[in-house]
Amino acid sequence: MSTPLTLYYAPGTCAQAVLIALHEAGANFEAKRLNMAEAEQRSAAYLAINPKGRVPALRTPQGVLSETLALLLYVAQTHPQAKLAPLDDPYRLAHMQEFNSFLASTVHINHAHRPRAARWADDEAAHKAMQAKVPQNMRDAFTIIEQHYLGDQPWVLGDQYSVADPYLFTMAGWLKSDGVDIQEFPRVAAHFERVKARPAVQRALA
Amino acid sequence: MSTPLTLYYAPGTCAQAVLIALHEAGANFEAKRLNMAEAEQRSAAYLAINPKGRVPALRTPQGVLSETLALLLYVAQTHPQAKLAPLDDPYRLAHMQEFNSFLASTVHINHAHRPRAARWADDEAAHKAMQAKVPQNMRDAFTIIEQHYLGDQPWVLGDQYSVADPYLFTMAGWLKSDGVDIQEFPRVAAHFERVKARPAVQRALA
Repeated sequence: MSTPLTLYYAPGTCAQAVLIALHEAGANFEAKRLNMAEAEQRSAAYLAINPKGRVPALRTPQGVLSETLALLLYVAQTHPQAKLAPLDDPYRLAHMQEFNSFLASTVHINHAHRPRAARWADDEAAHKAMQAKVPQNMRDAFTIIEQHYLGDQPWVLGDQYSVADPYLFTMAGWLKSDGVDIQEFPRVAAHFERVKARPAVQRALA
Repeated sequence: MSTPLTLYYAPGTCAQAVLIALHEAGANFEAKRLNMAEAEQRSAAYLAINPKGRVPALRTPQGVLSETLALLLYVAQTHPQAKLAPLDDPYRLAHMQEFNSFLASTVHINHAHRPRAARWADDEAAHKAMQAKVPQNMRDAFTIIEQHYLGDQPWVLGDQYSVADPYLFTMAGWLKSDGVDIQEFPRVAAHFERVKARPAVQRALA
């Protein structure tokens, strides 16, 4: 019998959020780890799966999907019993997608200017100038998360754990390498420990 | 009687996609235009609405939402009769969110390195280096759209018009200012004219 879902991922990337979501959902899936050090994501074999040459990608019975926030929504919608998204409330679902979009389009991009500066300029002096601004940009984005999105409740959506939580957890895990102390953001730091302690997260990280 | 939805937008920005979606949905809404030339999006009054200081933002009866792809999903979900998203099919909905996420996190970011290079570096030589790479990066992204996402059918989702279409239309409208001729991408160019001809799009652009 074939496995219905296959996740293509690499440790430490945003694909980790999808790996955690699949564990939280109790999904029947196989995880295929790409060797980013050898640029396996740019290999012909992988480009045939995801022509964008990035992780994550998820092979489903209907076809291959990519982009973290789309995969997170897909995992939540196809495993409704796991209650990983407020599927019956358009406002709260949009709020979750808003948060995930802020992670994808602002936080991830701010971070990427350190390891992936070459995407946006060809000369090394420009790469250094971009890398120099990464700590400030990560601080600015996490200030929004700390003050605007996280409250006194345990999860991004308040009392409901959702796919937004492993996504934030994954990006908060990048702060140290970006030169920012997570302890500058007490709610983010507490949220990080709370997510890390979950059994499904421990299984995903193992 | 109060108007249930208020869109904060500026012409030419990605907020245009949400404005079009609201017109397509036949929504009851008010549009408030911000003066970006005077940085109204950074004013205290607007930061109280959207602390990120960006457009679009949408005031709803339950609260304010931001991030284009979340607003597009919200408009589609709250106006199901307009059939602006494949709401009943998790795979197709995820595919739409994948496409919209590619626009938000790759295409928009590639574009933003021209007018908004100062977000990611402080020195002017670096800004010039980033701006020099914008045409190539927009070409690379639109090559993915042309070859991977657009087929021989009229819309991003094939025969179903969705909120992905005005979003692509809006970003295709940026190509010229980014130094790329839309005619390099025949499917994108035909899609642009097809969207532009729709009555709701004409009303939104008026």
